[in-house]
Amino acid sequence: MKWINVTLAHVSEDPGVVDLTAEITQNLLTTNNVWMMLCTAMVFIMHLGFAGVETGFGQAKNTVNILFKNTVTPIIGIATYALIGFFLMYPGFESPGWLAFNLSGWSMFWFSPGDADVSAAYASGGYTYWTDFLFQAMFAATCATIVSGAIAERVKLSAYLVFTVFFVGLVYPLIGSWQWGGGALKAMGFYDFAGSTLVHSVGGWGALAGVILVGPRIGKYIDGKAVSKPGASIPLAVIGTFLLWFGWFGFNGGSVLSANPALVSSVLVITSLGATAGGLGGFLAAYFAFKRLDLGMLLNGILAGLVGITAGADVFTPAAALLIGFIAGILVVISAVMLDKFKLDDVVGAVSVHLTCGIWGTLAVGIFSTNPDHSFLTQLIGVAICGAVAFGAAFLIFYILKVTVGIRVSEAHERSGLDSHEHGIRGYTIVFDE
Amino acid sequence: MKWINVTLAHVSEDPGVVDLTAEITQNLLTTNNVWMMLCTAMVFIMHLGFAGVETGFGQAKNTVNILFKNTVTPIIGIATYALIGFFLMYPGFESPGWLAFNLSGWSMFWFSPGDADVSAAYASGGYTYWTDFLFQAMFAATCATIVSGAIAERVKLSAYLVFTVFFVGLVYPLIGSWQWGGGALKAMGFYDFAGSTLVHSVGGWGALAGVILVGPRIGKYIDGKAVSKPGASIPLAVIGTFLLWFGWFGFNGGSVLSANPALVSSVLVITSLGATAGGLGGFLAAYFAFKRLDLGMLLNGILAGLVGITAGADVFTPAAALLIGFIAGILVVISAVMLDKFKLDDVVGAVSVHLTCGIWGTLAVGIFSTNPDHSFLTQLIGVAICGAVAFGAAFLIFYILKVTVGIRVSEAHERSGLDSHEHGIRGYTIVFDE
Amino acid sequence: MKWINVTLAHVSEDPGVVDLTAEITQNLLTTNNVWMMLCTAMVFIMHLGFAGVETGFGQAKNTVNILFKNTVTPIIGIATYALIGFFLMYPGFESPGWLAFNLSGWSMFWFSPGDADVSAAYASGGYTYWTDFLFQAMFAATCATIVSGAIAERVKLSAYLVFTVFFVGLVYPLIGSWQWGGGALKAMGFYDFAGSTLVHSVGGWGALAGVILVGPRIGKYIDGKAVSKPGASIPLAVIGTFLLWFGWFGFNGGSVLSANPALVSSVLVITSLGATAGGLGGFLAAYFAFKRLDLGMLLNGILAGLVGITAGADVFTPAAALLIGFIAGILVVISAVMLDKFKLDDVVGAVSVHLTCGIWGTLAVGIFSTNPDHSFLTQLIGVAICGAVAFGAAFLIFYILKVTVGIRVSEAHERSGLDSHEHGIRGYTIVFDE
Repeated sequence: MKWINVTLAHVSEDPGVVDLTAEITQNLLTTNNVWMMLCTAMVFIMHLGFAGVETGFGQAKNTVNILFKNTVTPIIGIATYALIGFFLMYPGFESPGWLAFNLSGWSMFWFSPGDADVSAAYASGGYTYWTDFLFQAMFAATCATIVSGAIAERVKLSAYLVFTVFFVGLVYPLIGSWQWGGGALKAMGFYDFAGSTLVHSVGGWGALAGVILVGPRIGKYIDGKAVSKPGASIPLAVIGTFLLWFGWFGFNGGSVLSANPALVSSVLVITSLGATAGGLGGFLAAYFAFKRLDLGMLLNGILAGLVGITAGADVFTPAAALLIGFIAGILVVISAVMLDKFKLDDVVGAVSVHLTCGIWGTLAVGIFSTNPDHSFLTQLIGVAICGAVAFGAAFLIFYILKVTVGIRVSEAHERSGLDSHEHGIRGYTIVFDE
Repeated sequence: MKWINVTLAHVSEDPGVVDLTAEITQNLLTTNNVWMMLCTAMVFIMHLGFAGVETGFGQAKNTVNILFKNTVTPIIGIATYALIGFFLMYPGFESPGWLAFNLSGWSMFWFSPGDADVSAAYASGGYTYWTDFLFQAMFAATCATIVSGAIAERVKLSAYLVFTVFFVGLVYPLIGSWQWGGGALKAMGFYDFAGSTLVHSVGGWGALAGVILVGPRIGKYIDGKAVSKPGASIPLAVIGTFLLWFGWFGFNGGSVLSANPALVSSVLVITSLGATAGGLGGFLAAYFAFKRLDLGMLLNGILAGLVGITAGADVFTPAAALLIGFIAGILVVISAVMLDKFKLDDVVGAVSVHLTCGIWGTLAVGIFSTNPDHSFLTQLIGVAICGAVAFGAAFLIFYILKVTVGIRVSEAHERSGLDSHEHGIRGYTIVFDE
Repeated sequence: MKWINVTLAHVSEDPGVVDLTAEITQNLLTTNNVWMMLCTAMVFIMHLGFAGVETGFGQAKNTVNILFKNTVTPIIGIATYALIGFFLMYPGFESPGWLAFNLSGWSMFWFSPGDADVSAAYASGGYTYWTDFLFQAMFAATCATIVSGAIAERVKLSAYLVFTVFFVGLVYPLIGSWQWGGGALKAMGFYDFAGSTLVHSVGGWGALAGVILVGPRIGKYIDGKAVSKPGASIPLAVIGTFLLWFGWFGFNGGSVLSANPALVSSVLVITSLGATAGGLGGFLAAYFAFKRLDLGMLLNGILAGLVGITAGADVFTPAAALLIGFIAGILVVISAVMLDKFKLDDVVGAVSVHLTCGIWGTLAVGIFSTNPDHSFLTQLIGVAICGAVAFGAAFLIFYILKVTVGIRVSEAHERSGLDSHEHGIRGYTIVFDE
């Protein structure tokens, strides 16, 4: 069997004749769309990953509270993104600048039966409108989840919920629109492939603002030294980390926005090398710093490597990926030590993983990118703009909540655990007699 | 590069020339089949989701027993479906009516080496025979799993196993054949996209029959009030719920039976909006009813939304999905309260989630469907027929077991936990000294 | 609409005309590559599966140590495979015999920006170079993980890490090159579809060598009888087993090396029937042997069935799959009893699952294969060669480590648990008061 080429060049008007090119385009759309839907499912499962890490490293007396936050976060994320965020982040205009909203898209979304017409707008060999929405909605919710881990075990749940509505509903999509919505950052030449800055450091800045305003847990710092609070279930933290790595295949792989074979598969290799090197960096740095085989830093090193590689997973060589991930793994240990010096109490190390390494990864694009258009200075400016707005907005929301309804539970509640007060059940009831 | 159309219209008889259209069709088949296989894997992982929810909400002294049931259920499900169910459910005749069996398919299945000839029968751009079997087999087993959660902690394992063989091997595929096998319900105009009735309410009816005949756990109802029995591990229940949502992407997305981009992706959006609204509904209803942030009802609300949206995930608008899911979330709370009023002890709320919301979702098709052919009355009749047969058959099986071998463990075994008696090990042994 | 065939047979030189056949080939490549990438992600999650099984069946006092090993294993696996293994296993020469290394591939890998040129080499409708690497790297790491489960709870972590570097970096890829790299075993007519021998029994031989040299845990054998050491968390073992079955869809399904619809989907059915029958076999054999519903043997039976079916998942009929899996399930129970007779202490039954059933499955190809070229004798010779080299190499590495740095922790450390000594934290801290 040999392949042939087709040479006829004008459109047939015979209705009995099939348009082969349309079939071929449709097939490619179908494959791209399958990939993007599966990436969406993988990013969704990252929410279970965050829940695992936070519940595992949190104390047993706050388990239900942490789980409640992590379960309700994707729900609020999807709901606010469908109600506001998606249309703020992707206004659909050329060069929308700093603020725009896609009003006509909003009504089409809500009252459409999901037929082909709506999707056709997006169907230029890429993926459908609905896939686009759901993939982006899953992304949006990760931003708030990052915050939840840092301020766990003493934040008032109601305050966190209100914060999440505003942060995921408005702040994240607004900043996102500047780059992925075709706005001002993109026009400036800033580059952030899958969100080291737009997702991770934005969430990390929110976490930092929360940590500052909520304050450390009771008994965390005694005589200037950080007191370790043992996590309830280390297996849960490991489950969470593996699910996050698994989900990152969708997070970065889906950010190619198609199933382009060479591009997507090289992104997955770069992502895995980043995670690998990050794990090694975190493990070795902790070994030299603390003289023990620190599982927490091995896990956070993996996540650090993943965050660090995310800004340029499509423009790094494997050798650069190994270096970037390894540095991220070291940075996460240094950052965790520094935060404790400043009495900034971050339960799971979310600021160190997502903010510190998010910044590092974004700047690394300016150093290691194989694309000569990328510049360190532009990356730095982009990081600064996003950081100023994300931190400022998060600080403002938390501050208003603090001076009005309050953002911290009572000392008695914190000491006895949030579960029994707010939820009425325990996270674990491992008894064998009645 | 510009696209062209092909205008030649007759078949070449030159053997050196390739049939491009065959290649194109084959490519589409390959993509559809990839999607369906991955949906199969996602539905498979729902069995782990059920295991998580049931083990998490069950008591620690019965953990191994629950895990045993949930592990053996997909095994019995796949085995009986391969031996009987598949050929009963898909007889392969036109309009098979109420009862038929595909005998020739049976022998082809068992003694075929999986080559292309067998698959060719199904290969009209869709997916292969083998994919069809495995996807449907994974579905079948979910039906029994629903029952297992409701009657946990006091049912005799042997009785449950026998029940499962008959319910998954005969009852589920028989009812399924009436709709998905092209039988009498389908001919009547009944619509159930992915199984709110055929899977979830059938399982829910089985659960209800079991709950009635097995009776409540010792000490569950004291002075007419339901006594809460704390779950062993709430993190496991959350893991289970997230895995079920994840798996539902395959459950509903695969029920499109192709990778049709617009249709599948809109089904995933509708599914996620249903889960989101269900979670909000369950959480808010429980907050107003019980004055606490009830994680159990948040989780069951998510599942309720998913069950509710399943009958019409391809014919609801996003706005309708939000409403249907929200109502499902409220219904699951009301239903749980009502069941306790009648002293019907359902360990994980399976009847409320799968039966109540399965009925609601099926009826919702008659109200909210964008397809004018769907009618509320037909939906109601379909629900009633399936309910009568499923409940009747399940009641009969459990009743025969009850009056012969018995379906309930002894009071001593129940009090001390099923694990030590039937399995000889504990679910958790968290001790640190030898 | 009717399909047509295209009859023109020479290449157009008009630059405005599209090459339809190239588009069609590219579409198929894209679909195959999507499937292979997702299989890669599924094989990755098997590492979480192994972590679950080992942590679940291990004692609580060693939980962190086990998790550390299982987290660092894929990291070492990916790193060594990228640095050495991949280029040793796939030298890229025709008939490379017993030892060869792809030096030019090495530098291309490390300093390439992942563009289409590199991938083009592999793009004959299959999948990309990067996908190939990552899929194989995930495979490689499973080999060491098998060892880790057997020798848990008393092996020195540093010794295990050094062993893993050599075993995954050199031994596994060398043996793999003889078959999958086109080397001497393949030339001999040996057949091992997805690695019953090349992955599972190689890992199993490493585990056996480790078990012999490390010796049994203190107090495991008293008066010639094996003392049961209760696992910390049976739910974790179930999570692990389900994730392994899920991952096996990628392990076997991806070993087709394309998304060929009939072939891949029949492989998945055969794989699931093997798991099903293995679970039934393990459960029934344990019931007759031990007179209890043994969850551990149900789980190990599932894994035994999966290992057993792996060598010929593309050449077995469903009926043969059921028989092969069932026998594997019985063998795993017999093997576990026999190992205890010889005081070979294998914490999770890794030798019984991966070695015993890996050998059985490879030999089963010689009995049940639908391909008449497969011969029992050739299979036996292949098993013997791989076994001799894998066991010999593993024994040598462990022996050198034993007589130099030592491979076993002190008695005091073993008694009090490895976690507190090497890691400084506990696996579980389930306390509710401060």
